[in-house]
Parts: sequence; C-alpha cells; structure tokens
Amino acid sequence: MTRKQLAHEIFSKQSYLCVGLDTDPSILPAHLRSFEDPVFEFNKRIIDATKDVCVAYKINTAFYEAQGLKGWASLEKTVDYIPSTHFKIADAKRGDIGNTSSQYAKAFFETLSFDAITVAPYMGEDSVKPFLAYPDKWTIILGLTSNHGSRDFELQKLVKHKETLDEGIHITRDETHYLYETVLTTSSLWGTDQNTMYVIGATQAEEFESIRKIIPNHFLLVPGVGAQGGSLREISEKAMIADCGLLVNASRAIIYASKGEDFAEAARIVAQQYREEMGVYLSNV
Amino acid sequence: MTRKQLAHEIFSKQSYLCVGLDTDPSILPAHLRSFEDPVFEFNKRIIDATKDVCVAYKINTAFYEAQGLKGWASLEKTVDYIPSTHFKIADAKRGDIGNTSSQYAKAFFETLSFDAITVAPYMGEDSVKPFLAYPDKWTIILGLTSNHGSRDFELQKLVKHKETLDEGIHITRDETHYLYETVLTTSSLWGTDQNTMYVIGATQAEEFESIRKIIPNHFLLVPGVGAQGGSLREISEKAMIADCGLLVNASRAIIYASKGEDFAEAARIVAQQYREEMGVYLSNV
Repeated sequence: MTRKQLAHEIFSKQSYLCVGLDTDPSILPAHLRSFEDPVFEFNKRIIDATKDVCVAYKINTAFYEAQGLKGWASLEKTVDYIPSTHFKIADAKRGDIGNTSSQYAKAFFETLSFDAITVAPYMGEDSVKPFLAYPDKWTIILGLTSNHGSRDFELQKLVKHKETLDEGIHITRDETHYLYETVLTTSSLWGTDQNTMYVIGATQAEEFESIRKIIPNHFLLVPGVGAQGGSLREISEKAMIADCGLLVNASRAIIYASKGEDFAEAARIVAQQYREEMGVYLSNV
Repeated sequence: MTRKQLAHEIFSKQSYLCVGLDTDPSILPAHLRSFEDPVFEFNKRIIDATKDVCVAYKINTAFYEAQGLKGWASLEKTVDYIPSTHFKIADAKRGDIGNTSSQYAKAFFETLSFDAITVAPYMGEDSVKPFLAYPDKWTIILGLTSNHGSRDFELQKLVKHKETLDEGIHITRDETHYLYETVLTTSSLWGTDQNTMYVIGATQAEEFESIRKIIPNHFLLVPGVGAQGGSLREISEKAMIADCGLLVNASRAIIYASKGEDFAEAARIVAQQYREEMGVYLSNV
C-alpha cells in the first residue's frame, strides 16, 4: 500500500485507528471455544465489526507463536481475512544480520501478505535494509516505545563530537541526543517517508514535538493509547501533519471491551468512539 | 539446562561448538527434495552427523518463518529431534513490552522446548524480564553483534554524569561508554550469570577484553566464526573462563560445507575441525 492510498483511506473514513489483534486464546468468550479455530473466529468477528471505522490492523505475532503451529495457522487465516483496503501490520519486532533479515522480510511480505512489519533497530543499517527492498511495503522502526523500559537505553544520552568552522577557526563541541533521537536521525536516511514509519509510544507525549523536528514527514505508529494510558488528543495535536501521519493503535481497549458474547459489538462501540474523536482532530489539518 | 550441566557437556566432549541450523530450503541437496519435509530431513542428518562433536544447536527462526506454516512445522520437528543433552537455542531476536514478551517466552520455552532464546535489548528491562522468569532457561541478550551495522548504534558512545566525593567536594564528570557496554552493565543486573548470556560477534575480537571486564562470568554466544571471518583462536584466548564461558556458533561453514549428497559427512568433518581446535584452548583453562 502506498502512502497516498493510506492517506486516502484515513480521510475517507475520518479515522487513523489501527486495531491491534493481540488475541489471547485463554481469555476468549466461552461460546467461541467449540470452533475449530477460536482465535480466527474471534478475529473474524472483530474485523467484521470494526473494518468500517479503522484503517489498519496490527497482528501481534507473539500471541500466535505462543500457540505453536495452530497459532501460526490462525495468523495466516487472519491476515488473509483482512480486507485489502486495510493496512496490515505484522507487529513482530524482528531484526538480525542481513541474510537473516531477508528471510524475515520474505516471511512477512511474501509468504504472508502484510503491508508492514515492526523492526528493532539495535543491530543497525544492514539489519533493516532488507525490509526496505520491497516496493509498497513498509518498515516500522522502533523509535521511542511506550513501556517503562524505554528509560534503560532509548532515553539514554548519546554524545557526538561535532566540528564547526567559526571565522576560520575549527571548534569542536560535544552534542548529546537521546539514543532514540539518534535512531530516528540515522535510520531516516536508510529509506524514505514513503517506506519507513516509526513506533512512538503514546505514553511519551512530552517527546512528540522534538520527534516531529527530527522526522517531520514520517508516519508514526502510536501504541499505548487505551490500556496503557496515553492521550489521543495530546499526541494528535502534537504530531498530526497534512496527510495525518499517524496510525494510533488500540488493542486490549477494543478487542476486550467485553469478554462476553457481545464482544464484537462492544469492540465496535469503543472503535467508533476513537473514530469520532479522531474526526475532530482530522478536521483541524 | 543448568550452567553446570552445560559446562559438564563442554568438558566431556572437549567442545564448545554450537551448530547453527540456518536451513534454507532453496539450497538443499537435490536428493532430499522428494521428502515430505526436506528441511527437517536435512536438519536430522546434520544433527546425527554432528551431535557427538557439538554441545548446542541454534535454530535461526527466520529461515523457518519464511516458509510459513510448513516452516514452523519443520522447526517444531527439529527442536524435538535435538537430543536433550544438547543446549537448544532459538535464535529469534525477540523483545517487546512485558505482556507480549511473556507470550514469546511461552512460545519458545513452553510450546517449544528450547533452553534459550536470543533477545534484543532496545526496549529495556520489562521487555527482557519475562524470559528470565523461567527456571533453567536462558536469555541471550544481544550485546555486540558481528555485522557492519553494529557501528550505527551499538558502538555509539553514551554519556553518563558521574558524581564523586573527593575530600568533601562533590565532583561531577562525564563518563562515556559504548551503548553495547551500557547494555551489558545494565542488563547483567536483571538476571544472573546462571540465566543470562550475551551475543558477542567473533568479528569484534578487539572488544573481548573490555567485555570480560564488564561481564567476567557470563557465558557468551559467539557467532561470526567461519562465513563471517572471526578468529576462533583470538576470541578463545581473550574470553575463555574457568568453566569455558563460551559457545561458538558456526552455521553456513558447517551445514553448507558441501552442497551435494555428502553434506552431512562434510558438515561432520568441519565440525570435527572446530572441536579439535577447541580442545587445545580448553586444555589451557
């Protein structure tokens, strides 16, 4: 999916909502358990109930891998069931040396028909580049995540010697930036804003302005609204750009809005609430 | 597997070799292609041919995921086929927010019977802790990797304000360390040297001495010997400790030693050469 197509979907639907399918088979409504593939049945109903109010689905691979072969089968069926109008994200946090990342890219972009995959940046350029080689596919690099552990490394300061020339004199000074800022600055040169996005947690609202200074035109995938407590209003006001530039994800807040037989209707109601609020912010750009 | 059991295997076999099963179905010997599961048949023969000269197998999950459901089935069969005397590593480079990492831990430690998993540290403590909750299982955190991209972030300098008291006067100074050094220092406090190891690439030989100053007692998983060019002698001399403390991985150099019908015998010969050299270094501790 191209950026233009994604933006078109966002403005037609007045929504930049991504529904996270973190489907845990141990907490599914009882009436689904007799089906051959309860996880897929659950996802199917969530997709049917939310597809007209969201533009993207994010499949958290961990929940499927935890079920082994059966889980991988549910994952495959779910990806295939998502309408082609929707942006399909594998939230897989992959990344390895080049020849291995190529295999992950093949897994998610060829064997499975995802539009995007989340990627961990720690191992640097050659671990990310293989994902960027696919036309119309997206690499969503971890920038600043929503969890407490973001303080351990992402929010540590890196130092760079910077040399400048002032009236003929070379001046060296040290500049410091957060690791995550260096990740944004460095990795934004590997691809373009047509094939790279960043994960920026909604719980890190105070950072959104400096983030937009580094990557003014990239789409951001923003988890952490809902169960994790981030504010949709704040991040939208700080980070929305002309073609929106935001995909805001909610997982548990939507898919587990009810744990009873009415789970799909309850999910739809919560998703509609997000969409309604998003419509207000979209009308401001 | 406990550290004591692993060390016992190493000294009994006089080997700290880990064989990497990065099995790519597109380059398997022709005579295996008629089998129902050529990848498993290949792995089975490699395991049979090398199990008495190695102590660990490392399964690179990317190569299996690239084949979809079929690949995940080959992976399951392969893990089950590895003898319980051998240390089984899922080279999966996972890591996500806590509730998601718990699902990954379940996938590799419960649903599959791996002894260890490689984990990316970028997201910090709560992304790693769920893996450490399993007794007798190991978390192998990415420290300094063997690829060129390690220069992008792992080898960037972090700055820390350090306050000391000198004759009653507070002195503040800035200390700089590589990001990977901070990862070692910080993450070594999350677990112990009985449940945490580190990935340190063999191509980074000049760093092994400073690494041993930070983590004198942790096992290191060392890829990059063989196809990537790292020196077994150099890393063994610099990083071996009393109970060895090293697992040296070779993948392509062993499993693709021959691409013909004799691939298993050829793999065995290369693995034996590694073992022979390792015996010399082990006799020095």
